[in-house]
Amino acid sequence: MKLRVKIWLEEDGQPVFGDGRLKLLREIHKTGSITAATEKLGVSYRHAWGEIRKIEQRLGFKLVDTQTGGRGGGGASLTPRAIDFLQSYEKISKSVSDDIDKKFGSLNL
Amino acid sequence: MKLRVKIWLEEDGQPVFGDGRLKLLREIHKTGSITAATEKLGVSYRHAWGEIRKIEQRLGFKLVDTQTGGRGGGGASLTPRAIDFLQSYEKISKSVSDDIDKKFGSLNL
Repeated sequence: MKLRVKIWLEEDGQPVFGDGRLKLLREIHKTGSITAATEKLGVSYRHAWGEIRKIEQRLGFKLVDTQTGGRGGGGASLTPRAIDFLQSYEKISKSVSDDIDKKFGSLNL
Repeated sequence: MKLRVKIWLEEDGQPVFGDGRLKLLREIHKTGSITAATEKLGVSYRHAWGEIRKIEQRLGFKLVDTQTGGRGGGGASLTPRAIDFLQSYEKISKSVSDDIDKKFGSLNL
């Protein structure tokens, strides 16, 4: 039997960030485009922006910069603080998984 | 910001046991009655039995003994192995929470 774990961040009992939002931001970072990210994840553009605004509001800083127009059309990129934040979150996530695997790698209950 | 965590047990990628099922078994243990437990938790009797059967099947041992008839009507009690299992699960759950609180008690991301 295997112990599974899910983590997320809360502030004042409200969810701030978890694996779903991580995926969205990672995909925006990878593709440089909110549209491309939403197509990959199968969510609406409106939903994605709603999520981004909620996280920004709760964290208190901007996560996504958008560029409109230009030769290749608009684009989106993560702010440096967003990239730092994602790295911290992923480090915590890996640390929790590693600790659990080490402590409860194979359970016989 | 606070790191929250949810754990559950899986076997071959299938969920076996988590906090919902823990609550159900704890309530049966406390009340000595499946009916009383389902009323407390707001689930149907049929649902509760379905859950119990699923866990029993996946763990490979009986969890609940039922007694029919008698002076005070029927009753239900956990088997000794079920009680051991719950205690082990709760110990793991507490250990994970404690480790996370110690390591990530207060986050500033």
